[in-house]
Amino acid sequence: MRTICVVITARPSYSRIKTVMDAIIKHKELKLQLIVMGSALLDKYGSVVDFIEKDGFKINNKIHTIVEGQELTSMPKSTALGLLEITTVFENLRPDIVVTIADRYETIATAIAASYMNIPLAHIQGGEVTGSIDEKVRHAVTKLSNFHFASTKLAGKRIRKMGENPSDIYVTGCPSMDLTMEVVINHKLDFDPIVKYGGVGSEIDLTGDYIVVLQHPVTTEYDKAGKHVLETLQAVAKLNLPTIWLWPNIDAGSDDTSGEIRSFREEINPQNIYFMKNMSSVDFLKLLKNSSCIVGNSSVAIRECSFMGVPAINIGTRQQSRERGKNVINVNYSSIEIEEAILIQINNKKCKKDNIYGTGDAGEKIADILSRVDLKIEKRLTY
Amino acid sequence: MRTICVVITARPSYSRIKTVMDAIIKHKELKLQLIVMGSALLDKYGSVVDFIEKDGFKINNKIHTIVEGQELTSMPKSTALGLLEITTVFENLRPDIVVTIADRYETIATAIAASYMNIPLAHIQGGEVTGSIDEKVRHAVTKLSNFHFASTKLAGKRIRKMGENPSDIYVTGCPSMDLTMEVVINHKLDFDPIVKYGGVGSEIDLTGDYIVVLQHPVTTEYDKAGKHVLETLQAVAKLNLPTIWLWPNIDAGSDDTSGEIRSFREEINPQNIYFMKNMSSVDFLKLLKNSSCIVGNSSVAIRECSFMGVPAINIGTRQQSRERGKNVINVNYSSIEIEEAILIQINNKKCKKDNIYGTGDAGEKIADILSRVDLKIEKRLTY
Amino acid sequence: MRTICVVITARPSYSRIKTVMDAIIKHKELKLQLIVMGSALLDKYGSVVDFIEKDGFKINNKIHTIVEGQELTSMPKSTALGLLEITTVFENLRPDIVVTIADRYETIATAIAASYMNIPLAHIQGGEVTGSIDEKVRHAVTKLSNFHFASTKLAGKRIRKMGENPSDIYVTGCPSMDLTMEVVINHKLDFDPIVKYGGVGSEIDLTGDYIVVLQHPVTTEYDKAGKHVLETLQAVAKLNLPTIWLWPNIDAGSDDTSGEIRSFREEINPQNIYFMKNMSSVDFLKLLKNSSCIVGNSSVAIRECSFMGVPAINIGTRQQSRERGKNVINVNYSSIEIEEAILIQINNKKCKKDNIYGTGDAGEKIADILSRVDLKIEKRLTY
Amino acid sequence: MRTICVVITARPSYSRIKTVMDAIIKHKELKLQLIVMGSALLDKYGSVVDFIEKDGFKINNKIHTIVEGQELTSMPKSTALGLLEITTVFENLRPDIVVTIADRYETIATAIAASYMNIPLAHIQGGEVTGSIDEKVRHAVTKLSNFHFASTKLAGKRIRKMGENPSDIYVTGCPSMDLTMEVVINHKLDFDPIVKYGGVGSEIDLTGDYIVVLQHPVTTEYDKAGKHVLETLQAVAKLNLPTIWLWPNIDAGSDDTSGEIRSFREEINPQNIYFMKNMSSVDFLKLLKNSSCIVGNSSVAIRECSFMGVPAINIGTRQQSRERGKNVINVNYSSIEIEEAILIQINNKKCKKDNIYGTGDAGEKIADILSRVDLKIEKRLTY
Repeated sequence: MRTICVVITARPSYSRIKTVMDAIIKHKELKLQLIVMGSALLDKYGSVVDFIEKDGFKINNKIHTIVEGQELTSMPKSTALGLLEITTVFENLRPDIVVTIADRYETIATAIAASYMNIPLAHIQGGEVTGSIDEKVRHAVTKLSNFHFASTKLAGKRIRKMGENPSDIYVTGCPSMDLTMEVVINHKLDFDPIVKYGGVGSEIDLTGDYIVVLQHPVTTEYDKAGKHVLETLQAVAKLNLPTIWLWPNIDAGSDDTSGEIRSFREEINPQNIYFMKNMSSVDFLKLLKNSSCIVGNSSVAIRECSFMGVPAINIGTRQQSRERGKNVINVNYSSIEIEEAILIQINNKKCKKDNIYGTGDAGEKIADILSRVDLKIEKRLTY
Repeated sequence: MRTICVVITARPSYSRIKTVMDAIIKHKELKLQLIVMGSALLDKYGSVVDFIEKDGFKINNKIHTIVEGQELTSMPKSTALGLLEITTVFENLRPDIVVTIADRYETIATAIAASYMNIPLAHIQGGEVTGSIDEKVRHAVTKLSNFHFASTKLAGKRIRKMGENPSDIYVTGCPSMDLTMEVVINHKLDFDPIVKYGGVGSEIDLTGDYIVVLQHPVTTEYDKAGKHVLETLQAVAKLNLPTIWLWPNIDAGSDDTSGEIRSFREEINPQNIYFMKNMSSVDFLKLLKNSSCIVGNSSVAIRECSFMGVPAINIGTRQQSRERGKNVINVNYSSIEIEEAILIQINNKKCKKDNIYGTGDAGEKIADILSRVDLKIEKRLTY
Repeated sequence: MRTICVVITARPSYSRIKTVMDAIIKHKELKLQLIVMGSALLDKYGSVVDFIEKDGFKINNKIHTIVEGQELTSMPKSTALGLLEITTVFENLRPDIVVTIADRYETIATAIAASYMNIPLAHIQGGEVTGSIDEKVRHAVTKLSNFHFASTKLAGKRIRKMGENPSDIYVTGCPSMDLTMEVVINHKLDFDPIVKYGGVGSEIDLTGDYIVVLQHPVTTEYDKAGKHVLETLQAVAKLNLPTIWLWPNIDAGSDDTSGEIRSFREEINPQNIYFMKNMSSVDFLKLLKNSSCIVGNSSVAIRECSFMGVPAINIGTRQQSRERGKNVINVNYSSIEIEEAILIQINNKKCKKDNIYGTGDAGEKIADILSRVDLKIEKRLTY
Repeated sequence: MRTICVVITARPSYSRIKTVMDAIIKHKELKLQLIVMGSALLDKYGSVVDFIEKDGFKINNKIHTIVEGQELTSMPKSTALGLLEITTVFENLRPDIVVTIADRYETIATAIAASYMNIPLAHIQGGEVTGSIDEKVRHAVTKLSNFHFASTKLAGKRIRKMGENPSDIYVTGCPSMDLTMEVVINHKLDFDPIVKYGGVGSEIDLTGDYIVVLQHPVTTEYDKAGKHVLETLQAVAKLNLPTIWLWPNIDAGSDDTSGEIRSFREEINPQNIYFMKNMSSVDFLKLLKNSSCIVGNSSVAIRECSFMGVPAINIGTRQQSRERGKNVINVNYSSIEIEEAILIQINNKKCKKDNIYGTGDAGEKIADILSRVDLKIEKRLTY
């Protein structure tokens, strides 16, 4: 029996790993260990712990690591706390392989602890290209990892070019697409998000056209976070379409983003926007699948929405360079550009689907590979 | 005026950065900030603080970060402490550029703090290939860095292949060679190491042939550290040549290495070996320059000794894949192989010099570049 | 010259130490060092840094220490971060005496760092009795301290009974009274708080009768924080008098308190309450001096308001057992009791002043003592 | 079922709590949780983990917390690390009561974490008076604790005088006496310490008269630690009696103490002293019971040895003010005084036993009380 330790540090990571966790539990030679830490534990940004436990997973350890403050000191200090404590947890759990997900700043703590402790490290979603600090974190984690599960062929190719051994790179598709596949098959909006999850703002009609907004601050532009979100608020308020707006995740700048949203509500009191904290991954995908378009800078617009064929407006630099399908229109931080793009996408109705990010079976593929890879820790640049 | 913040985390880092610090101080558009932390502060492994202050540098902050224990938990926890506190120091110092050196495990703390805080990061000695955890750390730091000062052409080429922007890569040679150049010019052993630095063991004659030993534990083989150093001890004791033996640096396994040395002394009481903690970089280079050969797994054998033309016996995997000149013989952890190689090198006398690691002017080149690079923090994979 | 290092960890501590800092700067044998950390740096709870710098004090070090989360884990983890980093700061500053203030949970970090590093520790406001975790912290800090500056005679007597040496106990009065004295002398409300500091809520008339509310969560009852503040909200909304409401400080439970206030505003939209984050100490005292009464559980109601003769309604257990003057009515967490007490106090107009907490010259007394005490660190229970 | 969480932070704490742990396990309404951290995990000072596991106890969590360095920074930083991580462990274990032992510097981390997290805290060995930083720590822990298990009547009286509620103070005797009682009954030296535990130095004859030395550095005099132990070394070497010398525990100054011992051995090579790291509590007590006298500044000389009637020479200030029986002679740091006192005690043979520290049934008494106390967390000074 191999023990596979999955570390979840933020809300979106859960939907990117859930089907892998399912497959690990089902696999008869694997045993799951689960650590939840960082912003994944904070209710303010939507604790994902309830969803995880409701889905039947047992959490081995919860670790609070987020150091308060908008300033850029918060990210490295929170990473430091995570690194300090996850080391003790790894020492007690002694997993055979650690799995880390994507590119949020705290994930480097998982990668350092595992690699320094001679525990083989598997990385999901390496080899992609985006903007912001994520870009640096993602490739640094690749250089600390032993096994790479790439979401796209191009991502796999980039990992190889960075000097990783081809035999350690697996193009499995992204596990988020597995969840998305289920929604594509059964996509009825069979719940009322407002009733089920609550929030603030005016109640809106979701039976007709509606849009979904999700805009995060960009860490390398954190001092403009308030200004950036204001452009989106103005465009959306002007269009006056039924809108579900999700609060941003925790990052340097998120207080400014949230603060700007709060001020805007106080002053303008927009009549057709409902603000929510979060919902389960599957419910969120259903909400998106039935929407007219998604607006903001979340990767879900580019990954899951391309798979489902949901039109997207991608704002600013956060997803710059990320591989994308034909469902996306890119715009600047400009209320005019955003407004125009929304109008185009709404008339566009459902666009063509794309499976560059996978075919819906990544979870099983990854679990299977984890059960049979050689447990090595040494590696060397291939050139 | 640009402020350049140099972070020294371990004894050997100082000699790799000293001439850069000299050149920063001399440069009229640059101002030096200096942080000393980690094992560089611990006397047990040879505090480098005395040398730094004697050389006239002012230390802005000292930070104790090493968490005790031989186990592999010590490395990630010490890194975490470093990351936590260096963040506060950077917030107070607010440097324009941070400079990190080489590939020791704690250097990733410097790299994370700087990159997460949007401070441009310069890395010295990237792009090389070796064994052990250093390999992972080095390339991860490259992916977090904005400017790369490579020691060799091949290293520069590798950094480019990893996807870094060619315009951010500078092949300056290694600053250690600057110091070494001074020793090559004036290499007389004009001091008695035993009198000047003290140590334990039998006093030895350094006027004739003598050898120098420096062997560190390998983090990925830490449980064999004692066994590995025993082979070297046996070979050296059997040859019975005058020997200066330097204690290893602090790493998982260093207690085993030191413990084995201590036991060997108790039991065998070798008559021609003198054990020392450390000495100034220049004195150490003079000691090497006048020796018959260097034995162990230190990079100094491959870098500085190739530049000076000192024969070297390189043991085991620690320097595996590092570019090397013709002064090196590689051997396994085997007392017989080590003994034979020493005999060959002693008869070999001075071998051909090599300048793959630089031409002795890296410090000035680096300071000059730091004074004029664009202070950017965004970057993206080139492919 | 002696260096006296003052550590401020929270908003209210500044007004309790300001005149001591003034007196240290004026004293020709003393030199001030100033560290600001913890919630004193967080804007959300009202950063006091701006006031400190505006008053002309130089801050030597700022340290972010607050770990996010409502749970009770936040307090010990934030204390741990403070202890870790203040140690490094003390090592760099090397003060002759450290001064710590009152009894907030993070102050124990200052006390531990100083006492473990053999730096004499002076404690202001020991020997008082209240409820909550503060009670434990206060007396534990007394047991770690070398010099005690008590606010009242009774407090000084209690410190002696706890086994401290009588010659180390000084009843100086509380330095907050020094500031208060200035306000008593010149108490005109010569600014418009709403214009000067901003906030949210309906603008109110401060020219006639108005009340001030300040209610903190109680750490040992943190799960009821929302419920407790709701009672006060209901009473105050019902009375419909012009009200300035200050947000609570950061403590386990403060998110619930703030959340309840926010919900109440959304639902009820009370027309005569204005919510503010914070203001300078002197402005706050002027606001209080001109108010009809203060409502809540802040110590300012019992200390400064008794000195100024401002009627107070003290709610719940937080100030239980604290020595008080005749200006205070105690009530339970009950909207009816709160409402009745406010009505009584408003008709009560200005009540009799009291100087149990000092005579307005504590700052100078304390600085003078600090300049001449023996710098000892050893101590022993007197019985 | 109540869960009682015992925290062991150092070698000597185990023997002070072992019989309590036994009694908790045997008690049908109690469940034991066990955390081992700090120097208790470090082999250099004698890991107690092996003894704990050999005795059949299950350790729930191990936490490495010791930050390297002789300087006084090591104590507060190690305490901070302990506080940070034990908080997470308490959050996961959720004990009903936490038990902390005695007065070592790290124990305050346990006390803070428990009290800040609203977990009732029980303290063993409060109310005693000694020198050094322990004095401050002990009483500060008393002020953070809810239940007090005093070793002597006088200690219990002092706790009451400090303002603790009489109904929370229990004079149970010290649990170390329970272990000692077993040795008193069966005290044959039925093992050869040198064979069983190993060490360095000349093998010695334990069949006749022999002495045992255990001398720790004093944290408030840490810069003289080397000088202090040298006096003892000189006295013991001159007497030339068979001597077992135990290495000191980890404290500021311990490197100097160990260093001085090592130098003395190199230079003088004393022929009748054997140096050992540690042994099981019971074996150590047997060694003492059969010795002619104990020399140094360990509390075992005053507590266990008075109970067993073993003569003791207590050196310097470390145990100053500790209640003692008639078995003790106090001397200064002076080789002459030490030598004379040893000669007196050796001729003194077995002295009168004393049971001021208990009657050998403390473990059961404590467990019984823990099973039935009210689980309260609030408390207030009694005056």
